[in-house]
Amino acid sequence: MSPSMTLYHNPASPFSRKVRVLLHETGQTGRVNLKPVNVTPVNPNPEVCHDNPCGKIPALVLADNHVIHDSRVILDYLDHQHVGNPLIPREGSARWRRLTLASLADAVLDAAVLIRYETFLRPQDKQWEEWLANQSEKIARSLEYFENEAVTELSAHFDIASISLACGLGYLDFRQPDLGWRSTYSRLASWYYDVSQRPSMLETQPPV
Amino acid sequence: MSPSMTLYHNPASPFSRKVRVLLHETGQTGRVNLKPVNVTPVNPNPEVCHDNPCGKIPALVLADNHVIHDSRVILDYLDHQHVGNPLIPREGSARWRRLTLASLADAVLDAAVLIRYETFLRPQDKQWEEWLANQSEKIARSLEYFENEAVTELSAHFDIASISLACGLGYLDFRQPDLGWRSTYSRLASWYYDVSQRPSMLETQPPV
Repeated sequence: MSPSMTLYHNPASPFSRKVRVLLHETGQTGRVNLKPVNVTPVNPNPEVCHDNPCGKIPALVLADNHVIHDSRVILDYLDHQHVGNPLIPREGSARWRRLTLASLADAVLDAAVLIRYETFLRPQDKQWEEWLANQSEKIARSLEYFENEAVTELSAHFDIASISLACGLGYLDFRQPDLGWRSTYSRLASWYYDVSQRPSMLETQPPV
Repeated sequence: MSPSMTLYHNPASPFSRKVRVLLHETGQTGRVNLKPVNVTPVNPNPEVCHDNPCGKIPALVLADNHVIHDSRVILDYLDHQHVGNPLIPREGSARWRRLTLASLADAVLDAAVLIRYETFLRPQDKQWEEWLANQSEKIARSLEYFENEAVTELSAHFDIASISLACGLGYLDFRQPDLGWRSTYSRLASWYYDVSQRPSMLETQPPV
């Protein structure tokens, strides 16, 4: 059976990776055709813009040509399309706790992506040190919270919260290899070492 | 009965406004104490950072001191705390369609907020014209989509999709009063004229 859905993605995009990890974890990789595209905020892709007017990836085109975005909505959709245990708890306090942890991981991703835009896309004379410093502090405060307040909870399930943070840490390794977060956040480092061995993480690693 | 929850917000923040509009629409304003705070990406607020490590608003502190963020997770939570019709469809194709429209409205908000940071926070000699132009085009493409493809759907319910877009258009009026979007997107202007009369929108207007 050929794939019925198409995912606009990029192998370097951590938001796309969250979706691809969930597809692996829920046995749905065969249902989705991966379509790699290059997109930055100053270089929109016409094909992506046609299907998602704001131009962002990931965007998921369904068999009936309806399009779902952004990554959180796609994750929610795909998590309703398999028969295993949901990776986003459907109800109760677990739901909002895990979604809040996932939101904090997304904030790490947002900050890391903004740092990438600032240092890689923006002309050097227009880069703003204070902006970069504050985005880095946002990442540091969030990782400290995960280290001290959430690592035990994270270990309990490889779900929406864990997938989001794992993709966040993977993106930090990819874009800021000298950050050295493992020495500051040793419990997180140990947790990440374990989860990075999962096939879903191994098969979705960013390009070298 | 005194409010059992506290919402960190700012009257100018469109993401906070989405939450406040939903509180009005679902009859829950009495349950939440509004705590105004000033936050920018280069001026974090220590109290907010204590409760939400990434430092963003809105953040909702529950009676048991658990904290829920960001705006989407708070909206999901609060929509489970009332007995009326859900403003986020629980299942079926309506769920992902409305969430996708809400996500597109959030992309308008993100772009408008990034434009605000670029022109108001960042030193003038570090502002980047190409970044600003592309964020504006993102807004234009998204509004064009709403105008041509979604305004009839929006009119059907004042729900997560409509609330998000209404707060987006309100924010454009607040921060870019000379944008003149009404002349380009006349059906959207007419829809917005109607929904802005709702008490939930009137009582959450940004400061003059």
